[in-house]
This record gives sequence, C-alpha cells and structure tokens, in this order.
Amino acid sequence: MVQIQLNRLVEDLESYATYGQDERGGITRPSFSSEDLKVRIRFIKELQDLGLEVSIDGIANIWGKLRGNGKKKGSIVIGSHLDTVPNGGKYDGALGTLVAKEIIRTIIEKDLTLDHDLEIVSFTAEESNDFGLSTLGSRAFVGRLSEQELRKATDSKGLLLSEALQTVDGDIDRIPEMAAIRDDKKVFVELHIEQGKRLESNDRPVAIINSLVGVYRSKVTVIGEANHSGTTMMPHRSDALTAASEMILAVEHICAEDKTDLVGTVGKLEVQPNAINIVPGQVDFVLEIRGECQERMEKIVGKIEAEWTEIIALRSLQWKQSILQQQEPTKLDKEIVTILQGVANQMSIPYMTLPSMAVHDAAHMSLISKSAMIFVKSIDGKSHCPEEYSTPEDIEQASNVMLQGILAIDKLFD
Amino acid sequence: MVQIQLNRLVEDLESYATYGQDERGGITRPSFSSEDLKVRIRFIKELQDLGLEVSIDGIANIWGKLRGNGKKKGSIVIGSHLDTVPNGGKYDGALGTLVAKEIIRTIIEKDLTLDHDLEIVSFTAEESNDFGLSTLGSRAFVGRLSEQELRKATDSKGLLLSEALQTVDGDIDRIPEMAAIRDDKKVFVELHIEQGKRLESNDRPVAIINSLVGVYRSKVTVIGEANHSGTTMMPHRSDALTAASEMILAVEHICAEDKTDLVGTVGKLEVQPNAINIVPGQVDFVLEIRGECQERMEKIVGKIEAEWTEIIALRSLQWKQSILQQQEPTKLDKEIVTILQGVANQMSIPYMTLPSMAVHDAAHMSLISKSAMIFVKSIDGKSHCPEEYSTPEDIEQASNVMLQGILAIDKLFD
Repeated sequence: MVQIQLNRLVEDLESYATYGQDERGGITRPSFSSEDLKVRIRFIKELQDLGLEVSIDGIANIWGKLRGNGKKKGSIVIGSHLDTVPNGGKYDGALGTLVAKEIIRTIIEKDLTLDHDLEIVSFTAEESNDFGLSTLGSRAFVGRLSEQELRKATDSKGLLLSEALQTVDGDIDRIPEMAAIRDDKKVFVELHIEQGKRLESNDRPVAIINSLVGVYRSKVTVIGEANHSGTTMMPHRSDALTAASEMILAVEHICAEDKTDLVGTVGKLEVQPNAINIVPGQVDFVLEIRGECQERMEKIVGKIEAEWTEIIALRSLQWKQSILQQQEPTKLDKEIVTILQGVANQMSIPYMTLPSMAVHDAAHMSLISKSAMIFVKSIDGKSHCPEEYSTPEDIEQASNVMLQGILAIDKLFD
Repeated sequence: MVQIQLNRLVEDLESYATYGQDERGGITRPSFSSEDLKVRIRFIKELQDLGLEVSIDGIANIWGKLRGNGKKKGSIVIGSHLDTVPNGGKYDGALGTLVAKEIIRTIIEKDLTLDHDLEIVSFTAEESNDFGLSTLGSRAFVGRLSEQELRKATDSKGLLLSEALQTVDGDIDRIPEMAAIRDDKKVFVELHIEQGKRLESNDRPVAIINSLVGVYRSKVTVIGEANHSGTTMMPHRSDALTAASEMILAVEHICAEDKTDLVGTVGKLEVQPNAINIVPGQVDFVLEIRGECQERMEKIVGKIEAEWTEIIALRSLQWKQSILQQQEPTKLDKEIVTILQGVANQMSIPYMTLPSMAVHDAAHMSLISKSAMIFVKSIDGKSHCPEEYSTPEDIEQASNVMLQGILAIDKLFD
C-alpha cells in the first residue's frame, strides 16, 4: 500500500516553521505580512517544481493542479492554510497544507494516475485577522463574502484589503472570476490538528470529522448600581459583578451537564467603573455557545436565559443582550466521511468520528464541494501557542488515511 | 437653647455648590483646581469677615481661630474638606465645613464665649486625587506622611505636589512647622454625610460615629489555562473566570452572613486574554474588606481564603495574592462620643451609634486629638454623584447636636 514519506514531511514542517519565528518561541505569520509573502513564494516554487499548474485567484488563494487522466470531471481538492495567529504554532494550517503537498508528491513519485484532477489549495487569511474577516480565502471563494464587502474592508490602520491583496498577487477585480471555477471543485478534504483533547482522552491518533459546530454569540449587559464599597452595606447593594458571577457559573453548569459536544464560554468581560472602592454598577460580557446541533444549541441558550432571568430577578437587577452571531452547524458530506472511515478501518487505524468545535475553511468549501476533514491528535490539546504539537507517528497515520481516502474517492466517484 | 440658622446654612451650601459645577449636573472641584482656588479665596474671606485668625499651614489646610476666654488650654477643632470627587455632590465635605462655619457664626452672634479656643479647619485634598494621596491634608498634618514622601509626590502629568501647594498658599518648606501646632488641637469633631443607607433604613436623622473602619485590600490572581473556546470541551477546561466567579460569590455570601457592619467587595477585575473565543487563562481582581473590628476582619479574610482554597483545589487551578493595604480600624474617643450621645438624648433627637464605613480626616486627627464624628442621613445612600442629598431638616438636627456638643465639650473638658 502506497504511503507518504514521513521524514520528508517532518522536514517540511520544520522548515516552514522558520518563516515568522518570533521572540516568544512561536510563529507569527499573519496573511499579508512579509513572512507570509516569503512562505508563499517558497510554496509556489515547490508546487511548480512538482510540475503542478499553479494559479492565484482574486482573493490570493494559491492553487496547484495535478492533471488526472481525464476520465472523470472536476477536481478533488486537498489543503488548508499557511497563515498563523500571533505567537502561534507549527501545525495549525501548515500541517494540512504540507500533508496535501506530500500526498501529491507521493502520487507523482509512485506514478499513480488519478481519474480526477487533484488540486492543492492554500487559503488566504484563515485565522482571525486585522481585517476582521477570518476564513477570508474560503469564504470569498465560495461567494459568502460579496465583492462589495471585500472592496470596503480595511484593517485597523485603514489599509484597504484590496491593497493588501496586491502584495500577494491577489486582485480585487478578479473576485467575480472565482465563481466560474467553483463548480469545478467536486470534493474537498482538509487535514488539521484537533486543537482539543478528545482524541488524547480517548487515545486515538485520528478523527474523521462529519460536521462543524454552529457558533452563537451574544453580548450581555448586567445593570446594577455603582455605590461606595465602604458605606453600602451588603443588603443594600445592587452588585453587577456578583450577579454576573452567578450568570457565568450558570453557563458553566448548564453546558457541563449537557454531556454532548456542546460548549459554553464567557471569555470576554468588562466591569464598570472597575474601581477598588466602588461596588460594580455594570458588567458586560460575551456568551459563546458552540454545538453540532442547532436545536440543542437553541435549547441550551433558552435554559441559560431562563436561569439568568431568575438570578437577576432575585437580585432585583436588570439584564439585556444583543446577539452578535448565529452561525448554524455545518454537516459535512456523508459519502466522503464513510469512505474515510472505511479506509481507516481497512488500515486498522483507531479513529473517532467527531464534530469540529472550531470553524475551518472546510465549513465554507462544503457549500460548493462534497467536503470532510481529518483531525490529528493534539498533545495536551494545545493550539494557537508555541507548545502546539502532534507526534510524527500520529501525523503519519492521519496522512496515510488521507492518501488512501483520496485514492478511494477518485475510484468510487464518477 | 441656642440653635444654628438653617436658612443661612442652606444658602451657603447652594452658593458653594456653584464652584465647579460640571456639565453632568455635578460638582467637579478637586484640590488645586482653579475652582478649588476660587472657593478657598471665598472661604478665607468669610472667616476673616467673622473676625477669625486665619492661617494656611504647609500642606494648605485652612485654619480659622475664634479666641476663647483663655481659661482652658488647647483648641476644639471642627470642620471637614471643600474638595470633591469628579462629578460629585454638594454635601460630601462642604456640608461639614459649612456647618462648622455656621456654628462659629452662631456662637459669635449669640455672644457666647468659650473656655477653649474654637477652630475651624478645611483640609486639603481629602478625596482620592491625582497625587495618589487621599486625606492628604489631615495625614500630612498629623505626621503620617513624611516630608520626604510629600516632596517626591507628583501627579500623573509629572507636576510636583510642592508646586501644586504653592498655587493655594501651601509651602512644602513649612511642613516641619506643622508639628509644633499639633499639640494644640485638643478635640476634633467632624460632621459628614453618611454616604450609606443605615440611617435611612432605621429612619434616624443622625449618627454618632465611634469608630472608622479598617480597610484590607488584596490583589488576587487566579491562574487557569487559556484555551480555544470551541475545541476545549467542558471537562478539559481550566477556566480562570468561572473559578473567579465562585470566589467572588464566596466573598459575597461570607460577608452577607456576617450580619455585622463588615463589608466585602470585588470592585476591580481584569480577564486575560479577554477574547470572545478563548477560555480565560488568568483573572486578576482586588478583594476589599472593611470592618470596625480588626479581629473580625481577620477571621472573615481567613474564612474567605479557606473557601477559595477549596474552590481552587476542586478545579485544580492555582491562586496567589499580594496584600495592598492593611489599615486597622480607628477607635474614636469614648468621652467625646458619650458627650455627643448625651446631647442628642437631651434634645430628643433619634440617633444611632455607628462605625464609619469610609475613611475620613477624623481617622488621622484621632491620632493627635480626642476625635469623633457626626453623620447626617443620606437620601438613598447616594454619594460621590450629583444625586447626593440630605434634607435640610436632618442637617439642622445634626448641626444642633454638634453645636450643643461643642458647648458641652468646652464645659466638661479641662
């Protein structure tokens, strides 16, 4: 059975990790930075050296096509992204992109000819970025960001996205052209690190991802009354922070009791006036709920709101909210998932079938392609930090599931 | 029985409130501001018009002396402060200063001669200020701030306190001179608004204050682990904010159960990294405990720390703290308190005997003088805001207790 060459892949990972090395031991390589430009030049050169037909689309996604024998229409696309968060790790994005390159290299070396064209992609600006547009490349590619939105987007310094795109061979005027090549993308498979501990907890190297979570975010304001911390006795207080504390614990216990893959977080919180000697008069925080089932998410949000209303009523305070985001969960393609599961079974590689708790480019690609993902175990669940790590052994197993999966998809699909 | 003239006092209050009127309907008159300078000039002029011997000490406290008949040594001092917090009210500070002026005016008009000298004082910069030195005037006067500390003090713009003092006739070189006049101050009585709801809850106009609270402040750090809010399942989290929420609720319930005049507050809190999609890795907050009994405060702090240790252990996180302030409670003078209680009883004015939950100039004056305070009911407990209010009727009763108290102290003391 044909296999990827692990040593070569690991060398690639280490070598790509030298672009954007920062003082804190991590990698800082946001899209459009000079380090991003350097890594793009290298990546393009390597795709060309492999004999691929390289193209850059309007939003600066990099595509490399290995022609098949022409028997079947459309492309099977594999890849991920090369940008990182500030002080990020070596694996988030780069692993999926470099595994895709390794798979294509292996197929070329072994002289395998596919019935479909096989394409590699590296999407632009997948991570949260200064333009406020994460998963920029894939969202724009599938048409979820309009040309108008893209034209007016600027970063915090006022730089137009259209100007930034020019520095990496993108072109805002070619955005409309992308629609024409969308239909061509028949299948999309993305490999990524898990960024969580589910695989580690279950001692499995690999997961087949069958859905991506929905994300609900709401900005909550708790209104109490600011008062002198010395002269306002305990029974006379309307403390917005003790009320918010109860509300935060309600989120925690309701989500913990749920026992599904739903999670609830209060990550951002501000106290007003935030002075040592003043009982807090107002607290603002953001509730985030992620889950794989929309109905379940709505039920949990309802439960939380009911408990909050009780907490606030008992304290005679007030609360209000404004919903920031309501992104429904994405179902990935059952056929592709089944093929990948079959391959893993055949190879006796222990795997789990999981929803992805983070959003990835595959969430958007699933709109135009039959899509699925493969996750590799993250050690200690760490991600977006220099400590991000997956073992070479786990990477090898996941890469080979992907390689065999692609070969199987090529055969099984018309 | 001799009484103050309420109309005149109320006119004074309204008139002084025109200095520093701000756009938000409050009074902004910090020490050393141009509005402070104007109100000082007026105050000094009025003391001189009353025939008092006016002097400004090194730290710019304003003193006005009404000579007694010389039978008894030392002065009885009355007064408070004329500075306000930003967007403060008409009563905090100004009331106690103007009641003192009204009492002296009444004594002069009624041709009463005291055995002691009677002095009025307006202390410099009682409120929290940009020099980071609240109760500046009284602390410096009693020697609790060294000349060295005062010489190096600067505000946030780098202005030396010594320069600011010059603008209001203070003089850093005359700080050492203050030691010589300290012994002269035999008794100090300060009238102030309550800034809380205890009198209102108990439907009493007046309180005799027998102690000032101790203040304990500790900066607490809760250390969890920052992680992706989507990929980190509920059981895998080390959320510093949910832990801090439990800790804050522990402070609330332990202090509420105490049923004494002790209060506990978390007024200032910061989350790190404070991002919507990251489980909080660290929370820093300040615990403040105020109470009238040092032993009780220590017991409560111990109880809180024990509960925190349990909370943190159950969550397998860590916490640490550094103590910012440990100011012990101040006992006021029993004799003076008893005299004031006796006067109130005689006048059939309903009063409570209470500790002050805020720090006042009297806390420092008690180091060198037999001191006590009188509080006037605050409507709705509001203070440090434009809504600060005490009724003329309550002010009148408190002022007359103070006037009769001063006359009684003059007689009873040698």
